[in-house]
Amino acid sequence: MDNLHDYLHRVHYYETDKMGVTHHSNYVRWMEEARVDFLDQIGCGYAAMEAAGVVSPVVGLECRYLRPTVFDETVRIRVRVKEYRGVRLFFSYEMQNAAGEPVFTGVSEHCFLSAAGRPIILKKQLPDADRALREALEEDK
Amino acid sequence: MDNLHDYLHRVHYYETDKMGVTHHSNYVRWMEEARVDFLDQIGCGYAAMEAAGVVSPVVGLECRYLRPTVFDETVRIRVRVKEYRGVRLFFSYEMQNAAGEPVFTGVSEHCFLSAAGRPIILKKQLPDADRALREALEEDK
Amino acid sequence: MDNLHDYLHRVHYYETDKMGVTHHSNYVRWMEEARVDFLDQIGCGYAAMEAAGVVSPVVGLECRYLRPTVFDETVRIRVRVKEYRGVRLFFSYEMQNAAGEPVFTGVSEHCFLSAAGRPIILKKQLPDADRALREALEEDK
Amino acid sequence: MDNLHDYLHRVHYYETDKMGVTHHSNYVRWMEEARVDFLDQIGCGYAAMEAAGVVSPVVGLECRYLRPTVFDETVRIRVRVKEYRGVRLFFSYEMQNAAGEPVFTGVSEHCFLSAAGRPIILKKQLPDADRALREALEEDK
Repeated sequence: MDNLHDYLHRVHYYETDKMGVTHHSNYVRWMEEARVDFLDQIGCGYAAMEAAGVVSPVVGLECRYLRPTVFDETVRIRVRVKEYRGVRLFFSYEMQNAAGEPVFTGVSEHCFLSAAGRPIILKKQLPDADRALREALEEDK
Repeated sequence: MDNLHDYLHRVHYYETDKMGVTHHSNYVRWMEEARVDFLDQIGCGYAAMEAAGVVSPVVGLECRYLRPTVFDETVRIRVRVKEYRGVRLFFSYEMQNAAGEPVFTGVSEHCFLSAAGRPIILKKQLPDADRALREALEEDK
Repeated sequence: MDNLHDYLHRVHYYETDKMGVTHHSNYVRWMEEARVDFLDQIGCGYAAMEAAGVVSPVVGLECRYLRPTVFDETVRIRVRVKEYRGVRLFFSYEMQNAAGEPVFTGVSEHCFLSAAGRPIILKKQLPDADRALREALEEDK
Repeated sequence: MDNLHDYLHRVHYYETDKMGVTHHSNYVRWMEEARVDFLDQIGCGYAAMEAAGVVSPVVGLECRYLRPTVFDETVRIRVRVKEYRGVRLFFSYEMQNAAGEPVFTGVSEHCFLSAAGRPIILKKQLPDADRALREALEEDK
């Protein structure tokens, strides 16, 4: 996956709280921003997936907050496919500040549903997306 | 409209910013919270309106920030129908802190669309909602 | 803890996303809303704690999304002290919809810092808050 | 001001609502994102201004929503200094979609305060920032 770039997020003023640092809820949103960008990069764009009638909601999250981040700082986010065997999909997230220090690690777990909310088999519904995810997993090893 | 109650919003920690006060964007969200509550009170609930195939997007906003508000403070919000003659709908908003001091005034402007995004005549589509809005306007005078 | 009430949150329109349900990031914010309310109830109010120079940032989160929630629905949130022995504090969260079905469970982990960001011993700094948390834990068993 | 670039914002999934389009409150946040970027470009960075003890809260907003925007779309935002004579500062905002169609116009009004919340004269406190704003205004004509 040498050709994958990390996602960069510059902390917005409205993302800070009265503690003077980024509010912890925003990292969950950055996970999504970076995941959308990652899926684009591996040829499995989320907008296209939804247009094809498949949604992939978050069913689980794990978040570790290692260092605070502040307004105007740029956070580098690396997303990888952590686990995927067709039904459940896990992404891992590593976030670093400009000094290269880890600020956050996380995992998100997803399932695949039809627009009507029924579980679907991605391999049947969207074989290309399924293949892209498997390859992303393979190359990661 | 003597039977109308004001809407109360307690400022959440995640709504503050590094200045130590509520971020200005949240008042726009509180306008919506209070508007939804107001529409319920006058018998023109927004969820029911959407279920009937009508959406009422915001097309304009005016906001005046008079005093900051802080975490854990309760803000009292009064919503009124400012103008309505069938096509465009204007709400006014007055927000006060616990000391009764004004903290914010605003106006929102709305149109009515079908689920497909076409302009509709509310009186034809949802005569009860149209009547409720006209009465809210009347009684306000 | 029979005298503790659950926290109620009515889903706001701005908390929904294009899937038609509540965006998952908002549950993290509701955890905070409910936690602030819970701390008030056990006599360990967060605003007072901060006024006394102590902050309690989130250092970890676990979230399980069990059922979607929708606009205008009221979510009942039960918070409990899951673990506390003086340094790290864990809260558990159970969220139910109006039908009493579980929609979300979660855990948040917190530390205690001075305003300057240094780790502190809550028992020394704020003995009353420390006691309130221990009692909340005790009574839970 | 030929050397100024517009600010680009790609619509995030979490910024959409159940109507399937961007929730209107987010444009207020994009105004801030674009304003921070603009101030950086004219040499009047907001982070530096705050580090020097000056804050510039929003005291007024006007927003016109012209066309909806959707997930994954890139919005081009042009910010300009609309009015500035030392005490009140007004910015104008024009947002376009990828097809070059206007989606939003807005104005924000700001004052200048010390960290303690007292009104200040920017020219005395931060003469360089004052000059940068005046020049941005001049060149705009």
